[in-house]
Amino acid sequence: MLALEKIGSFFVGGRRVRVSGKTKRTVAYSSNVVTEYDPNGSFLIEQAYVQYFLPHEHRFRTPVLLVHGGGLTGVQWENTPDGRPGWLSHLLDARIAVYVIDNVERGRAGWCAIEGEWPDLPVVRSDEEAARFYRFGFPGNQFPLDRMDQLSAQTVPRWPSTYPLQVAALDAAVDRIGSAILIGFSQGGGLSFIVADRRRDGVKACIGLEPHGLPTAYAPDMPGTPALMVLGDYIAEDDYWRDMARLGRDSMDAWTAAGGRAEVWDLPALGQRGNTHMMMMDRNSDILCGMLIEWLDRHHRAGDFD
Amino acid sequence: MLALEKIGSFFVGGRRVRVSGKTKRTVAYSSNVVTEYDPNGSFLIEQAYVQYFLPHEHRFRTPVLLVHGGGLTGVQWENTPDGRPGWLSHLLDARIAVYVIDNVERGRAGWCAIEGEWPDLPVVRSDEEAARFYRFGFPGNQFPLDRMDQLSAQTVPRWPSTYPLQVAALDAAVDRIGSAILIGFSQGGGLSFIVADRRRDGVKACIGLEPHGLPTAYAPDMPGTPALMVLGDYIAEDDYWRDMARLGRDSMDAWTAAGGRAEVWDLPALGQRGNTHMMMMDRNSDILCGMLIEWLDRHHRAGDFD
Repeated sequence: MLALEKIGSFFVGGRRVRVSGKTKRTVAYSSNVVTEYDPNGSFLIEQAYVQYFLPHEHRFRTPVLLVHGGGLTGVQWENTPDGRPGWLSHLLDARIAVYVIDNVERGRAGWCAIEGEWPDLPVVRSDEEAARFYRFGFPGNQFPLDRMDQLSAQTVPRWPSTYPLQVAALDAAVDRIGSAILIGFSQGGGLSFIVADRRRDGVKACIGLEPHGLPTAYAPDMPGTPALMVLGDYIAEDDYWRDMARLGRDSMDAWTAAGGRAEVWDLPALGQRGNTHMMMMDRNSDILCGMLIEWLDRHHRAGDFD
Repeated sequence: MLALEKIGSFFVGGRRVRVSGKTKRTVAYSSNVVTEYDPNGSFLIEQAYVQYFLPHEHRFRTPVLLVHGGGLTGVQWENTPDGRPGWLSHLLDARIAVYVIDNVERGRAGWCAIEGEWPDLPVVRSDEEAARFYRFGFPGNQFPLDRMDQLSAQTVPRWPSTYPLQVAALDAAVDRIGSAILIGFSQGGGLSFIVADRRRDGVKACIGLEPHGLPTAYAPDMPGTPALMVLGDYIAEDDYWRDMARLGRDSMDAWTAAGGRAEVWDLPALGQRGNTHMMMMDRNSDILCGMLIEWLDRHHRAGDFD
């Protein structure tokens, strides 16, 4: 049983735009609702959505903020493609407060359909690109390939140009929550470390799951903030991921040089083999979440956060 | 305290499309991730997302499926714009199992960015159109106008042409859940009555909150299924809504003529004044949700559902 104090959601960030001079058109919303649509007026764009789940009793006070990857939404923390409970459920079972962001233009954050506001075109990941990029081709990998459709279903379009907006919205989310442990995946991992560097009072620990777009340097005098980078299997066998892992290790060194305490987990070296990029969906996802909770417990006991 | 058995989510519906012959392009995903993007390949589109919250103890067994309005997502059932708990929380507090859909191309369902797949352009509702359409202009209305930004934030683009896809996805959701009480708002109200007519074993009761796009006739031999249409204030003072209410009453009469049992609530006549179209966000939203739970209790006691 899950004993929660409350669930809810809020939006952060966004800016108002005013559209004028566009032509009205007739739109049929259903068989008997046909009205004139006016594309002019005032709109809010570039906000992010945050859904939260607050437990009745706390393992520790500081909540976790889960930051999805590019082309994905907060759904990636819910049930795994093969229908098992996801990390969101496991964290709640462990009595940890969880906030889940749908960042700018992903999922429930909505996106900007106003022509000309964003300079580029959206991109969307095909199953073939996903299989390649997520390292599903290696024998023995733990992703449930027979349920690939459930990963396709949660894949959404993305605009590469919104990266700075996503940084700003994540920053605003941390500001609103007050203090948090960031767990960011892929693009969300890079965003998490950028925001952790900016919001030193707010971010008490930062975990990057095969993070992308990490800073190469951090401002000095970081107050010993713990950080963790988690790498799955087959990294050495994949040119692209070998480069990403090297950039990641350099970034973790820079974090420590700035006054933080960064650690890198090479999952195969820790006995967890077969992990793809989508480690929260892999067959051993429960074990991995348990390892992360242990890491958090250790830092909580050490007084790194309340 | 909220005692839940589990939370989770799944996707229903969708179809696979194959894109070929499009030109690759270079995309910068962040400052240090620049790769070639291939828009070709296999994609899943037109699926719907369903998030669920199952209580530990049940008021009654049959779950409620909440169906959002056009240009909105499942967020509309979460916190009200002025930050109070929304109907989702109230239903869970009442120990009712709740499923929340984000229908095709809304919110976490994702949308189709593949050029040429959908024939029309998306529309998005401006604040000005929202204020007019939602009846925010009448003195004494109960919408928290000072928090209009929170309604703007949850407003998303929509494609009018996806209406049949939304019917199909809601149908698939009911099929997957097994049996459910539908509570649909605006566009989601019309969708709910269409699907209730099709899935007579599955839909045990159907509630439309100022529903749009209702059927004008239902197939005969409906097994006494209870239905309710809820209308807010200022209907008689607004040409558009007067027409919608008339169509709604005709549809409820047709429901009863087909063998169902339909009821219409005129909220001002029941002592609830000032309700806008966004009744689940209005200041008296708690009272309205309580009235709906009472209606459900009555039909549960009468044996209309388990």
